[in-house]
Amino acid sequence: MDFVGNHILSVSQFDRDDIERVFEVADMMRPYAHREVVTRVLEGAILGNMFFEPSTRTRVSFGCAFNLLGGEVRETTEVRASSLAKGESLFDTARVLSGYSDVIVMRHELEGSVQQFAKASRCPVLNAGDGANEHPSQALLDLYTIKRELATHGKTIDGMRITLIGDLKYGRAVHSLVQMLTLYSNIRVSLISAPELALPSRYIDALRLSGHEVIESDRLEDGIAQADILYVTRTQEERFGSQAEADKYKGIYKVNRNIYTEFCEPNTVIMHPLPRDSRENASDLDADLNENPNLAIFRQTDNGVLIRMALFALILDVVGQISRHSRKVNWYTAKRF
Amino acid sequence: MDFVGNHILSVSQFDRDDIERVFEVADMMRPYAHREVVTRVLEGAILGNMFFEPSTRTRVSFGCAFNLLGGEVRETTEVRASSLAKGESLFDTARVLSGYSDVIVMRHELEGSVQQFAKASRCPVLNAGDGANEHPSQALLDLYTIKRELATHGKTIDGMRITLIGDLKYGRAVHSLVQMLTLYSNIRVSLISAPELALPSRYIDALRLSGHEVIESDRLEDGIAQADILYVTRTQEERFGSQAEADKYKGIYKVNRNIYTEFCEPNTVIMHPLPRDSRENASDLDADLNENPNLAIFRQTDNGVLIRMALFALILDVVGQISRHSRKVNWYTAKRF
Amino acid sequence: MDFVGNHILSVSQFDRDDIERVFEVADMMRPYAHREVVTRVLEGAILGNMFFEPSTRTRVSFGCAFNLLGGEVRETTEVRASSLAKGESLFDTARVLSGYSDVIVMRHELEGSVQQFAKASRCPVLNAGDGANEHPSQALLDLYTIKRELATHGKTIDGMRITLIGDLKYGRAVHSLVQMLTLYSNIRVSLISAPELALPSRYIDALRLSGHEVIESDRLEDGIAQADILYVTRTQEERFGSQAEADKYKGIYKVNRNIYTEFCEPNTVIMHPLPRDSRENASDLDADLNENPNLAIFRQTDNGVLIRMALFALILDVVGQISRHSRKVNWYTAKRF
Repeated sequence: MDFVGNHILSVSQFDRDDIERVFEVADMMRPYAHREVVTRVLEGAILGNMFFEPSTRTRVSFGCAFNLLGGEVRETTEVRASSLAKGESLFDTARVLSGYSDVIVMRHELEGSVQQFAKASRCPVLNAGDGANEHPSQALLDLYTIKRELATHGKTIDGMRITLIGDLKYGRAVHSLVQMLTLYSNIRVSLISAPELALPSRYIDALRLSGHEVIESDRLEDGIAQADILYVTRTQEERFGSQAEADKYKGIYKVNRNIYTEFCEPNTVIMHPLPRDSRENASDLDADLNENPNLAIFRQTDNGVLIRMALFALILDVVGQISRHSRKVNWYTAKRF
Repeated sequence: MDFVGNHILSVSQFDRDDIERVFEVADMMRPYAHREVVTRVLEGAILGNMFFEPSTRTRVSFGCAFNLLGGEVRETTEVRASSLAKGESLFDTARVLSGYSDVIVMRHELEGSVQQFAKASRCPVLNAGDGANEHPSQALLDLYTIKRELATHGKTIDGMRITLIGDLKYGRAVHSLVQMLTLYSNIRVSLISAPELALPSRYIDALRLSGHEVIESDRLEDGIAQADILYVTRTQEERFGSQAEADKYKGIYKVNRNIYTEFCEPNTVIMHPLPRDSRENASDLDADLNENPNLAIFRQTDNGVLIRMALFALILDVVGQISRHSRKVNWYTAKRF
Repeated sequence: MDFVGNHILSVSQFDRDDIERVFEVADMMRPYAHREVVTRVLEGAILGNMFFEPSTRTRVSFGCAFNLLGGEVRETTEVRASSLAKGESLFDTARVLSGYSDVIVMRHELEGSVQQFAKASRCPVLNAGDGANEHPSQALLDLYTIKRELATHGKTIDGMRITLIGDLKYGRAVHSLVQMLTLYSNIRVSLISAPELALPSRYIDALRLSGHEVIESDRLEDGIAQADILYVTRTQEERFGSQAEADKYKGIYKVNRNIYTEFCEPNTVIMHPLPRDSRENASDLDADLNENPNLAIFRQTDNGVLIRMALFALILDVVGQISRHSRKVNWYTAKRF
């Protein structure tokens, strides 16, 4: 894929080379995101960070990524604050807003809305989530985290063993990750979920067609025993008919310290797309694992900034110029990464 | 008018020379807004973008205009998020907020509120809409668009034929535009509306006093036949007693491709202050005109950025310094203007 | 206290030397806040301005302070817009958000929440108000204002006479100010409140233990007669069981022009933490004092920017570098400070 000037709407746009290109640029972004070096390469550029559905983490992550490249961010955070409420079409909204900024990041509750918006937009659009449909930067940051975590143990995505746990039916992050895994080879994928929340069969078929081994189970202990990666997800409550219906599935596959210690191999990496529900009886990933060095959930969100910086740099064609606009950070920075 | 350090509260502040001065500076802003060149002339300056009533388009347009000049933007988007809810007076709010920034843009639902705020403010204030009252930058961008569109056909505002369509009673944009037209000469103004939504007589009188020809009709076909500009407006639903009352007038003067092709001269320019209501039976300007090159509605919003940049540059007295702080854009920019 | 890299969570962190250090740096910030000089010392740094409870003034003040040092601001303004609603713990929120910025300012309605957040944060956190508990930058700006106002009359905090008026039971600003006063010597503190809204005895004890004179009264005239500073507060309505309960206390100690002229010494300074309630029968500090030069309430909010700039500069360790990154302001600035 040619990144320059293009929309990023779906994981299906990426082949393996594209993914590797994003990861390579993300690696370059590390000293900037970690505040060792400052770059001003996008000084004067404007991001329209359009969140018509709330998402603090994703919104701030994209905004910071753009700031870290030196650009400015103009933001919208609510559907009520928009002309959509007066019957304005996505076509009009896109035509207007794309005259205001150099690139747009958009989240919207309706599936397909971002794609529709992008068609009318006069500048590149990055999909930050359209309902239950796509959220490609999440899939990229997940896969990037998997790659980096495995590398510290001398392993690669090819040949890895990954276990997906929880709501595999509605979890957008899981679906996108699975799609990307089909580009790699020789993976053993274990699926742990309540039968009603199983991974849809088209994803299972795609994994098998790619030559991967797929094991389904509703017993947590089976699935996590021999795994390099545990990918735990929360129940997507908002997709259920009622809260009571959703509650039936909350916390039934809870990964905690006891279970991890008893069943997992020593270096099994724990991931989660966040937010995790930390309320009593609802948590899918217990806080008693917070000090476990294999808990990679905050390295995931840290990596999200790198991936988003990389996407901006590729789309706006400044990868080769970043270091030229750099200098050392001159303020206190915590050793936090 | 001396722009430097002054408030911009009303179209009545502008004489013809003032308008021409704004347009001249807006023309200078084009390469910056179109991302050919970056200027940092306002680097370090702060805009307080205070929207106590939601308006995504206007808010982002002002914010981007300030960013394009190199300045920073601090924003407020909701009346609930403010001390107004605790009984704070506009005087106090203005005194406090004007200590935080170099210039303030303000929108508020109450008529006269921005003027009251400006009286207490210690820095210049731009009115971005006070209820049904004033929205001067909208009037300026409309007139600027008319001027530029006509120029491509070898015409001028003096001597033009313009048709105003829709809710002429409550439409703030129409009222402000009409006021500005009185500064020009020899215009033929056609007014098309339901009798109950006719342009108030004081505006009609003002137009006639300026020597313009005014024609009133409730038949769309009559008014659009020989026009240089169609200015279509939506029904200002929020001004009616009930939704049912408002719905009676929605979409009764619908301009679409068939009507345009049958009745209009080939180069008649189509304008609209936006948002347009694109819902079935409600639209006043049909989407089937979207590919018509005479549809100027998105050039209007693009021009809004130029006009707002010009107002900032004039008020903050940096017009003469802009080019000195400039350099070429170094990132990918779509050919979108 | 070593400021560099530390959280600012409570007034109890500060000894007298710390306070003087903040004030010294705040003094240095004056030409930057007053737009005579621009500094870019924090260019490339990012503030996470996290307001999980609305507060326009405090939020914009912190944001502008960071912009004035050259940094960027990413903002969150609503609890509904956050993952907290999905059961995310403050630990997770802190871990994630502290990977996005160099420093975080946080306001939250729950007492102790900011402290809990800070524990998990990987970057310095400034408490901008946790419920009725702490708001240290407000206390610092109040004390800084007192110091500067007194200095113009040749007086100092040591030895001053201050009168605290209104809701002394629930007023967070009053409690924090009182705590700081215990670090100074020989102050006469007059307390004027309804008996039910008296200053809690632990604060009175602390003042007396520090050797200060404390006088309690429920008669306004007694307390304001011989004072250098009047510190008027509003009734903290949100802390009462019902609106009717709160209304009983609103506006009963109203300071206005008549009372000031009749009872106060000529140069008595009038302060208020704002917002003041300006509604009829509710106001605690009348608008008829707005033109009185001793009314320091807007100098307080102006000073807030200086104090917040100082805190950022100290925590991020750039105090010594500010002037090196400076240049003259090149745009129009009102003479407003």
